[in-house]
Amino acid sequence: MTASSSPETAGRQALIDGATRLFAIIGDPIAQVKSPGVFNPRLAAAGLNAVQVPVHVLPERFDATVRGLMAMANLDGFMVTVPYKTRVIPLLDEILPMAAKVGAVNAARREPDGRWVGDMFDGRGLVRGLTERGIRLGGRRVLLLGAGGGGSAVAIALADAGAAALTIVDVDGAKAAALASRTAEAYPGCAARSGAPDLAGHDMLVNATPTGMAAGDGLPAPLDGLGADMLVVDIVMKPEVTPLMAHARERGCTVFGGRVMLDGQAEEVARFLRIGAAG
Amino acid sequence: MTASSSPETAGRQALIDGATRLFAIIGDPIAQVKSPGVFNPRLAAAGLNAVQVPVHVLPERFDATVRGLMAMANLDGFMVTVPYKTRVIPLLDEILPMAAKVGAVNAARREPDGRWVGDMFDGRGLVRGLTERGIRLGGRRVLLLGAGGGGSAVAIALADAGAAALTIVDVDGAKAAALASRTAEAYPGCAARSGAPDLAGHDMLVNATPTGMAAGDGLPAPLDGLGADMLVVDIVMKPEVTPLMAHARERGCTVFGGRVMLDGQAEEVARFLRIGAAG
Repeated sequence: MTASSSPETAGRQALIDGATRLFAIIGDPIAQVKSPGVFNPRLAAAGLNAVQVPVHVLPERFDATVRGLMAMANLDGFMVTVPYKTRVIPLLDEILPMAAKVGAVNAARREPDGRWVGDMFDGRGLVRGLTERGIRLGGRRVLLLGAGGGGSAVAIALADAGAAALTIVDVDGAKAAALASRTAEAYPGCAARSGAPDLAGHDMLVNATPTGMAAGDGLPAPLDGLGADMLVVDIVMKPEVTPLMAHARERGCTVFGGRVMLDGQAEEVARFLRIGAAG
Repeated sequence: MTASSSPETAGRQALIDGATRLFAIIGDPIAQVKSPGVFNPRLAAAGLNAVQVPVHVLPERFDATVRGLMAMANLDGFMVTVPYKTRVIPLLDEILPMAAKVGAVNAARREPDGRWVGDMFDGRGLVRGLTERGIRLGGRRVLLLGAGGGGSAVAIALADAGAAALTIVDVDGAKAAALASRTAEAYPGCAARSGAPDLAGHDMLVNATPTGMAAGDGLPAPLDGLGADMLVVDIVMKPEVTPLMAHARERGCTVFGGRVMLDGQAEEVARFLRIGAAG
């Protein structure tokens, strides 16, 4: 059932009343977030009197704002985006295993007993989105560009999904090494190490750096000899087709953009936030 | 232009995105509030990417929740309902004159310089609503039942609108006397005093007690000898026709319910919150 385009369902969102339950998405800046456009149609489709609203949280007022949100009796959960995915952790009562391994939270919910629990869905959204598109991840040998927030989530989730090897590349070599050792420790079956952006010996390339977002950006790494058998994923959300994606398509690769991560994640986050059936 | 019933406009509310500005209404309980149904169609009609959402504020977490709301960078204002209209005052930076006279705030906005300013519209909503329906208030001799939050707002606003006399009745006689003296002090032209619920010498009766809300409620005062020339107003919002209103209609009086206060107030609050043109 797709609901977002029917006037009846769209109208439901208009019917915010005193009994409406709230979800938030917090970040700084906030205007760019896509999450309300993904979750509000789902809330409507599930027949819930609830909306997700963006909340612009200023760094210097982070604690007061987020504690205020968590104190609202009709707010059931919130999502977290840049730059707060790690900073939110100390405010929560419990961090679920995936989030603890990644060291970041992107969704939190209030439990029936009032405790706040956080989990991380960025990486597993990518895994789910790819799996739903028929991509097998078990046994993959992955070259991962970027060891920041996005890269951490992707590394842990790919290892969790059975990737055989993971080479992590970052301009900050110590950061790449730390993520590799964290991943290897949590998933001994995955040969995780830091290294150079060398495609040899890999069958999957993931860009988790911001390169490709800004106009005039080039490739996130030199990609000579990119073959058609390489699976290429760019988690950059905007533009829809990055220079990496265009380049990889020219070479005949199977290519996915950030949308696949968002789509796959929506289902998982909706379940975590108890938002009900998908649209 | 009435906009709330058109699917196009209703759909706009569905389009909550990252750039959506927020307004709130706070109270405890909150499920009964009508305000989002009044203001969201106005926001849509004004073409603003903004929504008003209910926020359930628990008494024991009042300060943390409201300070959190006020810290959100994309929240431009909030309305306040029972039981917080007085309690909110210390959190604000400036209280406008009507609110200061009433001792209560029901709307607050963030100024461009970041300061929070509160004002009170309950009573002036009633004055505007009645005036728009062709009712003259200057020179009125009013019997006012109830000296609580609603009664205080009504007393000050009617005195402000030129009422000649105001007899204030409350089971708590000291409360009635205090409101009378506050009103007389602010508006020396209005003969405000506390007294008994005696219709003689009055041409307008206002019920600002909760009597009439609960099933099985009777009249808020013994009203023998109610004549057809009495203007009768009941600010109770629900039911739409209270026992007092039914009784007064039977006697041939001109009668208004709480809706007139809400309608009249919406316009004033919308202007205060800079919500733009009315629907």
